[in-house]
This record gives sequence, C-alpha cells and structure tokens, in this order.
Amino acid sequence: MFKHVDYLQFQAKPEKPDALFAAKLQELVGGQFGEMTVMMQYLWQGWNCRVPGKYKDMIMDIATEEIGHVEMLTTLLARLLEGAPNETTEKAAAANPVLAAVLGGMNPQHAIVTGGGALPRDAAGVPWNTGYIVASGNMLTDFRSNAAAEAQSRLMTSRVYNMTDDRGVKDMLQFNLARDTYHQQQWLLGIEQLIEDGFTESGIEQSNGEDEKDFARRTFYSFDPESTAGEGRWARGQSLLGEDIEYVADAVPLTDDKPLGPAPDPKLFVSYAGDMGKGKPGTGGAAHAQGMANVVNKIKGALD
Amino acid sequence: MFKHVDYLQFQAKPEKPDALFAAKLQELVGGQFGEMTVMMQYLWQGWNCRVPGKYKDMIMDIATEEIGHVEMLTTLLARLLEGAPNETTEKAAAANPVLAAVLGGMNPQHAIVTGGGALPRDAAGVPWNTGYIVASGNMLTDFRSNAAAEAQSRLMTSRVYNMTDDRGVKDMLQFNLARDTYHQQQWLLGIEQLIEDGFTESGIEQSNGEDEKDFARRTFYSFDPESTAGEGRWARGQSLLGEDIEYVADAVPLTDDKPLGPAPDPKLFVSYAGDMGKGKPGTGGAAHAQGMANVVNKIKGALD
Amino acid sequence: MFKHVDYLQFQAKPEKPDALFAAKLQELVGGQFGEMTVMMQYLWQGWNCRVPGKYKDMIMDIATEEIGHVEMLTTLLARLLEGAPNETTEKAAAANPVLAAVLGGMNPQHAIVTGGGALPRDAAGVPWNTGYIVASGNMLTDFRSNAAAEAQSRLMTSRVYNMTDDRGVKDMLQFNLARDTYHQQQWLLGIEQLIEDGFTESGIEQSNGEDEKDFARRTFYSFDPESTAGEGRWARGQSLLGEDIEYVADAVPLTDDKPLGPAPDPKLFVSYAGDMGKGKPGTGGAAHAQGMANVVNKIKGALD
Amino acid sequence: MFKHVDYLQFQAKPEKPDALFAAKLQELVGGQFGEMTVMMQYLWQGWNCRVPGKYKDMIMDIATEEIGHVEMLTTLLARLLEGAPNETTEKAAAANPVLAAVLGGMNPQHAIVTGGGALPRDAAGVPWNTGYIVASGNMLTDFRSNAAAEAQSRLMTSRVYNMTDDRGVKDMLQFNLARDTYHQQQWLLGIEQLIEDGFTESGIEQSNGEDEKDFARRTFYSFDPESTAGEGRWARGQSLLGEDIEYVADAVPLTDDKPLGPAPDPKLFVSYAGDMGKGKPGTGGAAHAQGMANVVNKIKGALD
Amino acid sequence: MFKHVDYLQFQAKPEKPDALFAAKLQELVGGQFGEMTVMMQYLWQGWNCRVPGKYKDMIMDIATEEIGHVEMLTTLLARLLEGAPNETTEKAAAANPVLAAVLGGMNPQHAIVTGGGALPRDAAGVPWNTGYIVASGNMLTDFRSNAAAEAQSRLMTSRVYNMTDDRGVKDMLQFNLARDTYHQQQWLLGIEQLIEDGFTESGIEQSNGEDEKDFARRTFYSFDPESTAGEGRWARGQSLLGEDIEYVADAVPLTDDKPLGPAPDPKLFVSYAGDMGKGKPGTGGAAHAQGMANVVNKIKGALD
Amino acid sequence: MFKHVDYLQFQAKPEKPDALFAAKLQELVGGQFGEMTVMMQYLWQGWNCRVPGKYKDMIMDIATEEIGHVEMLTTLLARLLEGAPNETTEKAAAANPVLAAVLGGMNPQHAIVTGGGALPRDAAGVPWNTGYIVASGNMLTDFRSNAAAEAQSRLMTSRVYNMTDDRGVKDMLQFNLARDTYHQQQWLLGIEQLIEDGFTESGIEQSNGEDEKDFARRTFYSFDPESTAGEGRWARGQSLLGEDIEYVADAVPLTDDKPLGPAPDPKLFVSYAGDMGKGKPGTGGAAHAQGMANVVNKIKGALD
Repeated sequence: MFKHVDYLQFQAKPEKPDALFAAKLQELVGGQFGEMTVMMQYLWQGWNCRVPGKYKDMIMDIATEEIGHVEMLTTLLARLLEGAPNETTEKAAAANPVLAAVLGGMNPQHAIVTGGGALPRDAAGVPWNTGYIVASGNMLTDFRSNAAAEAQSRLMTSRVYNMTDDRGVKDMLQFNLARDTYHQQQWLLGIEQLIEDGFTESGIEQSNGEDEKDFARRTFYSFDPESTAGEGRWARGQSLLGEDIEYVADAVPLTDDKPLGPAPDPKLFVSYAGDMGKGKPGTGGAAHAQGMANVVNKIKGALD
Repeated sequence: MFKHVDYLQFQAKPEKPDALFAAKLQELVGGQFGEMTVMMQYLWQGWNCRVPGKYKDMIMDIATEEIGHVEMLTTLLARLLEGAPNETTEKAAAANPVLAAVLGGMNPQHAIVTGGGALPRDAAGVPWNTGYIVASGNMLTDFRSNAAAEAQSRLMTSRVYNMTDDRGVKDMLQFNLARDTYHQQQWLLGIEQLIEDGFTESGIEQSNGEDEKDFARRTFYSFDPESTAGEGRWARGQSLLGEDIEYVADAVPLTDDKPLGPAPDPKLFVSYAGDMGKGKPGTGGAAHAQGMANVVNKIKGALD
Repeated sequence: MFKHVDYLQFQAKPEKPDALFAAKLQELVGGQFGEMTVMMQYLWQGWNCRVPGKYKDMIMDIATEEIGHVEMLTTLLARLLEGAPNETTEKAAAANPVLAAVLGGMNPQHAIVTGGGALPRDAAGVPWNTGYIVASGNMLTDFRSNAAAEAQSRLMTSRVYNMTDDRGVKDMLQFNLARDTYHQQQWLLGIEQLIEDGFTESGIEQSNGEDEKDFARRTFYSFDPESTAGEGRWARGQSLLGEDIEYVADAVPLTDDKPLGPAPDPKLFVSYAGDMGKGKPGTGGAAHAQGMANVVNKIKGALD
Repeated sequence: MFKHVDYLQFQAKPEKPDALFAAKLQELVGGQFGEMTVMMQYLWQGWNCRVPGKYKDMIMDIATEEIGHVEMLTTLLARLLEGAPNETTEKAAAANPVLAAVLGGMNPQHAIVTGGGALPRDAAGVPWNTGYIVASGNMLTDFRSNAAAEAQSRLMTSRVYNMTDDRGVKDMLQFNLARDTYHQQQWLLGIEQLIEDGFTESGIEQSNGEDEKDFARRTFYSFDPESTAGEGRWARGQSLLGEDIEYVADAVPLTDDKPLGPAPDPKLFVSYAGDMGKGKPGTGGAAHAQGMANVVNKIKGALD
Repeated sequence: MFKHVDYLQFQAKPEKPDALFAAKLQELVGGQFGEMTVMMQYLWQGWNCRVPGKYKDMIMDIATEEIGHVEMLTTLLARLLEGAPNETTEKAAAANPVLAAVLGGMNPQHAIVTGGGALPRDAAGVPWNTGYIVASGNMLTDFRSNAAAEAQSRLMTSRVYNMTDDRGVKDMLQFNLARDTYHQQQWLLGIEQLIEDGFTESGIEQSNGEDEKDFARRTFYSFDPESTAGEGRWARGQSLLGEDIEYVADAVPLTDDKPLGPAPDPKLFVSYAGDMGKGKPGTGGAAHAQGMANVVNKIKGALD
Repeated sequence: MFKHVDYLQFQAKPEKPDALFAAKLQELVGGQFGEMTVMMQYLWQGWNCRVPGKYKDMIMDIATEEIGHVEMLTTLLARLLEGAPNETTEKAAAANPVLAAVLGGMNPQHAIVTGGGALPRDAAGVPWNTGYIVASGNMLTDFRSNAAAEAQSRLMTSRVYNMTDDRGVKDMLQFNLARDTYHQQQWLLGIEQLIEDGFTESGIEQSNGEDEKDFARRTFYSFDPESTAGEGRWARGQSLLGEDIEYVADAVPLTDDKPLGPAPDPKLFVSYAGDMGKGKPGTGGAAHAQGMANVVNKIKGALD
C-alpha cells in the first residue's frame, strides 16, 4: 500500500517559462529511459521479487522514490509551460515577432491535450509503453538492466541539462543527475551483494551453464576480413570466467545446414516446387504423429 | 556493405515438429530481448559509433553475427511448424484426439500470416519495435545496455531451453546460450577497455558530474518506515566513487515546494479557481517576455 | 513524494494456483481499463490539477490507492502462477494428462518473461501504453472519463469474477468490485461538486459555447431511412440545456461543398489532371502570400 | 451496408492555407479523442449492440454521421495545406523570410507521406489505433465512455478553435462544437432512457452487486495525512445508491498480508533464498494437483 | 457524407458457434491485411484523391463497400461466439470435457472485453493501427499498394477458409474471396487506365527520373558468391523500361567512403578519440555557418 | 550467415550539415516505406522462402543490399547532424539569429537520444515496427507487396529529394532513386517469372478459386447514386481473368440478413431485451453442444 505526502522531494522552480525547452524535457519523463520507465520497472521488479528483506525493501524504496521523481518533472513542466504561445500564429508573430521562431518547436499537444501540463510521452510525442521495462524475477539480470537504465537516463538528463541556462531548472536537474549517479552504483553494488549472498557466482547469467557449448563461450568471431576487433580486451586474455578467449578472424559457417524450411502444408498456398516431397497438412509428419501417439497412449494409461 | 553466405552459422535441426513449442520460441526471435533486438541494437550502435578501429569493428562484427542468429531461429521455427495442425478443429480432433489438446496453444498467425514460417513478433504475438533498442553514441552507457540485454536474453533462452526435450532444438540452443555467456563478458570487458583507453574514469556515467548535488550522489533514501534496505551493500561502506554512503531511514521532503502548476491560460479552459492570479494567454509571463525582448535586440544587432 | 507500507490494502490469497485464469486476470492489470490505467490516469490528473485543496487532494488520494491495487493484483497473479506447467508439453501431459487441456490457454510469457510473475500487459499479451489515459486539466471532462473508466473497469472485473470458483480470488475481487462501485459515484458526485462550486454550469462541456452553431446543438440527424432512433429520449423533448430537440429523419448535406482538395504542389507528384489550375509549390497561393507579407511588415516594424 | 453521398455534411472552406495550423488540427482527426475515435467507437458499438430498434438505430445513426465528420476534416486539412512550403529551407527563407519561422512547426509528413493531404495520425504524428476505443456490449458503460469522449473531444476542438483567426475554419469548427454539445447530451439522455427501460436501475454499473463487499462500496479512503479531500461531496452525505458515505482519514492496510509471491519454479531461475520451501516445477502444488485430479475423474466419468 | 442501410451486403449465418475459429477469424477483421485495413486505406485515399470523376468515385465506391464488409465480419463473429465457454474452467470441463480442449485457444477478450462480440484486433489480439495503411495522393503507387493488399487479404482469407467446415461461414467467405479476386483486378485495371489517361507512362513510379543514376536503374547486384539469382528474368533481358539489365555477381562497394560520422558535439558526451578534430557544439561547422550567413544576408535584403 | 565490408555501397557525403533536412530524411530510414521496411521485409521473405535456387537467392541478394542502404542513410544522417544547434535556444539565437528559425523543426531526439546520429524512427519520431512488413510464404502476394513498397519508397524519396539543394545529398539520393526504379521492375519481372514457372496462372491470387462466388468475381458495385465510376476500365470490358465485368449502379443488399448478434450470455452483462430468447452461458447452444458431443464420441473411439 502507498501513501502520499503533498510536498516534492526536491524543488522544481524554473526562473521563467520556456515552452521550447519543455518539449525537449519530455524525454526525461516519458522517453525510453525517462523517469516513468524506472518508476514502473522498479515497481514491477519489487512486486515480482521473491526475496523478502533487504533486497525487496531496497527495490520498493527506490521505486517509491521514482514515483516522486515523475511528480517533480510534471510540476517543472507545468511551470515551464506557463503562458506558452498557444494563440493564432500570425497574431503572436505580430505582437512579439521572435515568438515566431519558437512556435515551430513547441509541442502543440502541450496546449491541446493537457492544457499546459506535462504529457506521458517522449520528446517526439510518442506515448510511453511497458515494452520499455523488464521484471524477470532474476535479480542479477534485472540489476544489470537497472544499472544500464540509470546510465542511459543520466546521459539523456545531462544532454538536456546543457540545453538550458535557467538556474532553477539546472538546480533540479543537478539533483536528478546525482541520484542517477548514486542509483547506477546502487545496482552495481547490488550485484556485489548478490555474489556475496550466493545468488550468483560470477555476476554472469549462466543458468543451465553446464549444457552450453563451451567452445562458443570463449570465442570471438569476426565477420569482416579487415576487422581490427582482435585488438580489444574482449578478444584477448582470460574471460571473466577464467577461460582463454579465442579470436577467430573471418568466421566461416560451422555447418553445411542451409536456411531452408520444410515442405509446406498445401492448404496454406505457400510457393513450393515439390522438391522436398509432399507437404502434409495438419499431421506434423511422421515423427510428430509418433510423438502424439505416445501421448495418446500415456493418457489412456492415466485414464485407466 | 554486407554479404550473405547461404549456410547457417550453426545447424538448426529439430528432431520433430512441435507447433506449441514454436509459439513459445517466438520470444527468442521477436521479444523485448530476442535476437532481433540485439541484431538491431548492435547495427545501430555500430553505425552510430564515432571511434573507428577496434571498437567500431567489434560492434559491427557482433551485429553481423546476430543477423545470422535471427536466420538460425527463423529456420528452426519453420521446421518446428512442419505439418502444424491448421485444419478444422473438429476434424483434427477426430483424426488424432490429442491434437485437440495443443490446438489452443498454437499461434494461429503461424498458419494464417506466414504459412508455416517464423513471425517477427514475440511469444504473445506482439510486433517487434525499435522502442526496444538504444544507440546513444556513448559506449559506456551502450555497453551497459548490451551486457544487460545479453543477460536477459540468456535467461529467456534458458527458460525456453527447459521447455523442450527435442535434442536438435536443445543442440542449437546450447550454442546460443554459450554465445550469450560470451557476449555478456564481451561488453563487460569492453567497459574495462574503455577505462584503460580513458573513455571513462570509473565505469560510472558521470558527464557534467562537477555540477551534480554531491549530497544526493552518496545517499540512500528509504520511503518505508519498516524497510530493511539499510542492511545491503548499497547502503553501507564506500561508494564505487570512493565516498561514504549515507543511509536515510524514512526520508522526508527536502523542500516545502508543492506539486502545483501555475495559473493556466484561460483560452485552454483548464479548471482554475483564480487563487494564483490571472493566467495570461501566450505571453509566457513577464520573465518570458523579457527574455524574448533580449533576443529581439540581439537579432536586430546581428542584422545591422 | 510517496511512501510505501509493506502490507497489501486487502488480502490476495487464492485457494489454489490456476495458470489459465491468471492469463485472463491480466486484463484487470494491464488492459485498456485495468488498474494500471486508473492508477496512471489519476496520478497524471492529480499532478496536472490546478485547483489545490479538496479537488487535488481527492484525486491524489484515489491515485495513491490505485497504486496499491496494482500491487494487490500482481501479488494475486504470482500466487495463481505457482507451479504453473512450464516444462515440456509431452512430459506434462504424461504426468498429468488433464494438464494438457490447459497448456494451450496459459500465457507462455508468464514463464519466459517474468518467471512466474504478473506482466504489465493485457489478457492478449499487449503491453500497456499511455494512449489509454487522459489528463486534460479540465476537471469536468476528466471526471466524465474517470466515471466511464470505473464503470468499464467494474464490468470487466465482474465478467472475470464469474470465470472462477476460487473463494480466495473471489474474496479479493469482491473488494475491487465495491471500490469500483464507490469510485464511479465519487466522480459523478465530483461533477455535482463542480457545479456547486461554479466550475461548470450544467455538467456539459461548453467552452466557447457562445460561438457554436445553435441549430446543430439541439438536432438529431438520422442517416438511415428506416431508423427508429426518433423514438428515444435523445430525440424528443428538452435537451439538458433546456432547448427543444429537433429530429431530422434521413438527413441531407447542409452544403454543396464536395470533399475535394486543391491543386497539388507539382513537386509532390500527386495525381492531378490540371482542372483546378496550376498547383504552386511552397507559396501557399495568393491569400497565403498576402498573409505572410503582412507578417513581414509587422516584423519590420517591430525591429525598427 | 453503407452508401456515400458526394457532398460534405457541412462546408470546409478555409480563407487561406496555414500549414502550421494544419499540424495542430491533426489532433481532431487522429488524436485519442479525435473524430476517428468516435467514428470507430460508435461503429463497433453499433455492430456489437444486441438491442435492435431505437438503441441500435441511434448508435448506427451517429456512427454514420461521424464517418462524414472525418471526411470534413480531411477536406479542410488538404485545403489548409495548399502550397505549403515544402522546398529547400534555404530557398524558402530567401524568397519569403517569414516562412522560415513556420518551417519548423510544419509536419513534414504532410508533404512526404500524403503529398499535401491529411494524415490518420494525431498532432504529434502518432498513428491512430484501436486501443482508443471501447465496445463492451453493455450500453450503460459504453454510453458513459461516449459522453466522456464527446466532452474531451469538444474541449480539444475548443482549444484548437482558439488557435486560428481564419473565419472559414472557425465556421466549420462552430458546427463541430455544436455537434459535440448535442452528442454529450445524447449519451446522457441515453442513460436516462436505459433507466426508464429498465436496463439499469441507478445508472451505476453494479453487476454481481450482491457479492461486493458493502463496506468498501461507501467508503472514501485518504492516503495523505494532510488531505482535505473529506470536504468534498464525494466524502460526505449519501451516495447515489442511498447509503451514508464514510470518510477514512489516513487509511491503514486492511490485512497483514504482504505483497510476496510463492516459492518459484526452480526451472525458471528466479532469485530465491529457499525460505518458503522448495518450489515445484509444473505441478501447481498440492491444491492444484488435487483440483486437476478431480477433473480427470470427471472426464473419465463422461467418457464412460 | 454517408448513409446506412440496416441490412448486410451478404448474409453472415454460421451453422453453429465456434469460439476457437472465431479467434482465428479476427485476422480477417483487424489484421495487417484485414477488412479494417482496406476500409480505412480506401477511405483515406478517396478523401485524399485530387482527380474528381471516375477515379475518385471508384475509390469512394469501394471504400464504402468495405465498411460493409467489416460489418459482415463483426456480425459473423458475434454469432460464432454465441454461448462461448466463459465460465470456470473446471466446471466447463466437468460438464462437457471436450470443451477443455478448446478452452486454451479461445480469445478471453472475446468474453471479458466485448461480451461476446468482435474485437478491432488481429488473431494475436494486437490492436489495429493506421501504420497499416497508405494514402500518398499518387494513384500509381497507391493502386500498387491496393493490388498487394487485396492479394494478401485474399490469401489470408483462403487460409482461414480451409480451417472450417461450417457451411454458413464458408458461404460468406466464398463471397469475400470473390470480391478480393475482383478487387485485385480492379486496381491492376486502374493502372491500365492511369496509363491510358497519361497519369503514368510505364506503370513504374519514376518521378524525378531524369536525375537518377542510370547505371543503377538497370543493374542487379548479387551479394553472395554462390547466388544463382542471375538465372531469373529480373537479371536477364530487357527491363520494363526497355533497357538491358546488367547482372553483377559478387558486388563490391562503389566507393571508398566508410560509414563513419563526423566529430561529435562535446556537449553530447558521445564517445570520441579526437581523431577527426574538435567537434563544435551548435555551429554546424564552417560550411554550415557559411550557409547560414547567406540566409542572414538574404533576410536582411528582404527586410530592407 | 552474413559478412560485413567496411565500405558503403555508395558514398554519403553531404556538402554541409542541415539538421532540419535530417529530421525529414528520417522518413526514408524508419518510415512505413523506409529502408528498414524493405530490409526487414526481404530478409524475412528470404528466410521464409521454400523455393531454393534463383528465387530464394534473389530475395536474399536484395535483402542483403538493403541492409547496406540503411547503413548509407545512417551515415548521411550523422553527417547532416554535425554541429547541429543543441544548446540553449536563447544563446543560439544570439550567436546566429537565423538559427532560431530552424530550431523548431529540428528533431530534439537527434541530440538527446542518439547524440547526433540517426534514429530508427520516421519523420514524426515514431518508432519502426514489424507491423510494416509481410512475409506470407506466397511469392505472388509478396512480390505484389514488394513492388508496391518500392513504388511508395521511391515516391517518398523523390519528394524528399526535392527538399534539398545539397549536391552531395542529391548525389546519393540519385543512386537510391535508381535502385527503387530497378527494384520495382525486379518484382514485376519476378511475377512474370512466377507465371513462366507455373507458380501462378494469371498473376491474380486465386487459391480456392473454384469455391468463390463467381458472380461476385466480376462485378463492380457502386454505392453512390451519382458515382461516375462506371466510366473506368475497371467497370467495363473483360476482366484479367477473361470474364465480362458487370457494373451495378446504386448497389442494394444481397440479403435480408441484419447485422445483429445472438442472445448474449447473461454472465457477461451485455445489454439485452430478451427478444431473441434466453442466452445460455458456456453451452454454445444446441448446435454447438451437438458438435461437441460428436467430438466426445470420436475421442472415446480413438481411446478404445
């Protein structure tokens, strides 16, 4: 359950309105790596976390903080949009000709849709969606995603930070930049803790690792004869798992298998020259039918 | 420019068709962390890379490999869909009653849309989109995203791997699992190389770091009075930047600023009680007007 | 700013797992009218509200409650997914043949993507997006949307409620149904309060009402000669604004204007037979040019 | 079946082209509450309506009218785009410098994609999708959605109306504003009719109402200690169902149930410390297995 | 303006309900090439058509017919969904065990969202969107798209047709198949008419054709050393424009230009080693500045 | 498997940066008919092709070429974005006043998201998705789609080509225009080859053609009494299948069947007046039950 406190975590006081900058700032709210993304990603990871105690509490703490960050940004946006030029273009240009210059860059939905408030969209006006977030239940993979999200989020914030001289806006973004610096580390330290607590041995996701083809776990394949990729750390020395990395320049196929599907079901009218025999509709072929017969027998046994 | 070799990188030979498993396997093709995602993410990062030589070559090498991984999976899918039950439900059930059990779980678009081939969609049938990928131009943040993508991709592959007993399918997925193990490390080793080459000092994205609020860079805020998050590594000891981490239990607002927008433009018909004065349409308020006047003067100067 | 309390608002205790029902229940989480929609719609309306005091506080209160409702549903879903059949289809069918019957209806992403947790998606597996929500800044129109959202949400909940016999699931949904009943009224009572406080006269959105064509404000047009729509209350008696409603059977166009665009810009290669004169690229025609000339003059004046 | 009449319902004659305004006008065509939304929503509700006679006829009448409203807007848009500045930026600026001011705000897809015609997209250029519409089969909930859609649509129209001085554009929008005023009432009067005809008792969606938790049907919970929401009509007096509303300041959880999922299936590699016992793959736990055993027995009985 | 006639164009009378088939049939309503796509594509092309008379009338005629086709399919779907199994899974299985087999394949949104009616979505449950349609204003390119849409639509219809034995369903689909056969030809004959009327010379889109590199207009490049593509008609003989086609086996780059961006703006924190000189923020480099200076001079001239 | 060659297929050397033009050029990368669409469409068609030899090789050849075309465009875009004005608006305007004119039209994500590189989005900033592509397995229908895609792509390219004077940009686009001219023909010649090789008789998709209603295969229906569509080639003379086309002016319904669904399941709370009898939940009505009983008997037989 959640509670609300009617104050911002940190103040959001621009010196003056700036509708053009507001359009750009939307990226930090509803972009792929905006605050809505981390808010929702952490909420879902927290709800999906099966390890109660410090891990689940930590995820819920940061998730709860992030709801407040969206709140800060929506407040900042509404203030940046104060008195934004929404009237007739010609009139606006006449009264204050330089306004004409910024009319193009404004986001018209800031007037038409929200009446001067923030939008749950990115800087291009694209709605936010949950395709941006992940909550896999596996803390190692999710902490990797979170560290990446904070790094990307901080980079976008930093770029936007350089696009304004407004001291009030910069003041708030200086807080956000610092939180992103801390949160990046929080997730990387979280991986250290996972290792310490035995949830992962190496920090590398390696479930079913005993089954993987080991030659392919330590090999860099290059696909361009002139590639210089072999000069990098990733292609030389020991891997993080302690194996020697192999560099294969100008890789070749490891098989003579060609990318060709089987004979198609004739009822589906797929173009076919008959060279792979007759396609059979809905039978799955001999092997499939046999597999199914096995199941029939097992069901019969279970029903007896 | 690219070239094509008409062999698969690794063979894709299922023992027998399995349309139900094929529906699940789609997640590894067109899911948020499927092969299309890494293929497109690396292509775009490679094209967007401004550091020629080993870095750009490495990214293009792996991008090129990943196109071939989508090729492997589409081939595997077509073969798993051989003779999938696409006819009348009742007839199928009569001829082979157990088929009825799997009819529900099949993806009907595998028959209707592709005629027995793979779909560029995920296991729920949702089309793939570029909202899944990032190419920021900054290798540190992108390598973090890539390491996360490989870890998530490997986890999903590993879960799907456990959903089949087909030795041919497992054989190919054992190759894919290994590549994901290697590629995770490749990007983490890439960050080591970035540090060695001076592209980042600490592996933490910290552009404009000199401007961020330093108290907020080293503080864990908790928002639940009963939270035990303070017990974790992320809330104790030194940060990765060498500062002492502060733990704030039961955080309070750092300001008395409330989340309230300014007086709205009356032409936008936003609900308003008049308590913040009169909203002015299209003027941006006094400060804004002044800012604009300054620009007018500068333009006049420049034109003279 | 927000706080978290580590207890659910209401208990979420299914009697037993049911992966097939879990797939349906997703509609109440991430559907067009699921809990994520009302959670996000109310948060954005609250942040965008310019009337502090009881209105803004009320919207934030319900928004905060709704975050907790998503939390309840995600917990219920994880419990319904306990031990869901994620292994090989054939094996599962052998061990427990009736399981085969439900294998089709399960959502494979519940295993592959979340590892047995809820998804931020609807019952068809489609990701949630902010195209589902509205925060216009105008409380009358938003309260209408909210009353509709609660009614639709309650209907969907009620349909899903009838799809299970699990007393634990029904217990929680009985709480949700009641909240939806209350919340529907809350927004309708909110409109009463808006009228009482003078934010709207009639509860009908009628900004710029003095400009609208009054004949069209009170007329029902029918477009089917056999339509019986004239028998309804909407076509007879007084409108809610106190005017007599007019019923026009078999409506005719009110103009001889035809739906035809002007002569196209030849640089755009639009099919055109020349019958409307010569299309001019980038000039906007005489009227446009004149309008622009006026602006030029005004700018010159302003710069002098 | 439908017929077409080659005249507009109402004329669409702008005085002069205005490409910048055209970009904004797109919101009224392809926005969340644009004419495409009501056209499609009413068509689908009409086709899905099970009550022949005045209800179904009424819905089909307005649906048919709305197709014509999209036609009016697309015609208006093509005329506003006449001679829009599509050439080289530099050239345009040289020939008519003020054009430079509006070049930014134009929607380039108006030239590149449609060759000077309307787009089925909103003012941000986002494609329209059916996630915007609802046709639930229940007229009460749908009429609530329709009244809301007309109110939102009218508000957006009214905001856009204030962004132009073109008398021809304003003339057509005055017609649209009036239709939205009428249509809002049409759906509210429709609810009156539903009550009169016995399709709903109170206008509140309350299916399965006998099962809902009645304490939760009449209670306002506040989640902010300083909230003043208790002063509103929604928290005082009688509900629309005739019950006394209860106001709970500073709500507390109604349970000691915590948001924690069960022991995860080990085959899914979800992070887990083992504190809830051993997760079992694919069995659904004891209760689930028992439920399934019951079904097996019933099937055996039915097959005998 | 449009009118409605309350009869279907062709009857939609299934012999009996079939919820599983209904789920598949959705592809023909809301799929990429379903009836909604052709309905909306033709409506938008008709509204966007600048050639009045037989062309515009023809497009509007077929567009109007297609609205009626969506109506036919939605009616068919509602009838196929009559009494679909929406109750508790276990109960349904007990009462009629074979129902269990189809429970998985049903679309739960057919019950939860529409209450037994059609959905504006495809067979995977994905909402329809306007990214599926095109209305370019150019009849040649649009007629090509329309002929393709009808061919794809017919193929999908034909595949679905083979998935049922219901004579009533087949009866209606036999009408739809025939209309798709006719409509394919209608658009191809339309291209013949465009040639006859001089709107295109060859049926090949070749605007600005005088500027294109002519060597690249008649050359097939192969990118696989073992490719046999040279054996096809597309690589031999005369092109449709009367030129000799050239076949280039194993193509090589036509330039030594490498895919590398310029020195990045340092304010954007793009990874960069400095090897291309100093990136300059916001100036566009020397060439850009010069170009802009030219514009300044022209504006000054125009304002004088 | 694929290989990479680190040179562009054709040079991409703009004379000078132009951020405004870059925003438009995005349509040719990530638009509905941009290079990503043809790249992905051909890759998927090639992987899905069941006819090895010249057909499959041809499709893979062009698919491989198109990857390189995206590479060319991303390189061109990065160079056009060199030094794009990303700083504070006011500062930029002061330093170079004419820059103010283009600030609006720039795509801010070119700075914030990619740091001066191309975006996988269209000119409106909308992400690319696989809903734009088709790979049906049927070469006739796919070649029709490909010919259309090339025609539309060429038209968009040609429109964008006219929006710049930059000789370097025009040089590269002249190559692209020519490839689109060739590729249009390639697919049309491919249909000739399909006819020659017997994959289609007439070039008209007509699977299950023996079942279609033949009267509907040769009839043009008009739905507007004033339509002149009967004057076109599509309504007169012989069809491409050699039948006489019939023109029906002012079409009437071919049935007295009305668009009305059956009695709804009462558990779904669909509005219903009881006039079609009692809706039965989960039974599917008599016919459905009978059909199911038949399946039960067949399963029993199969299990014995």
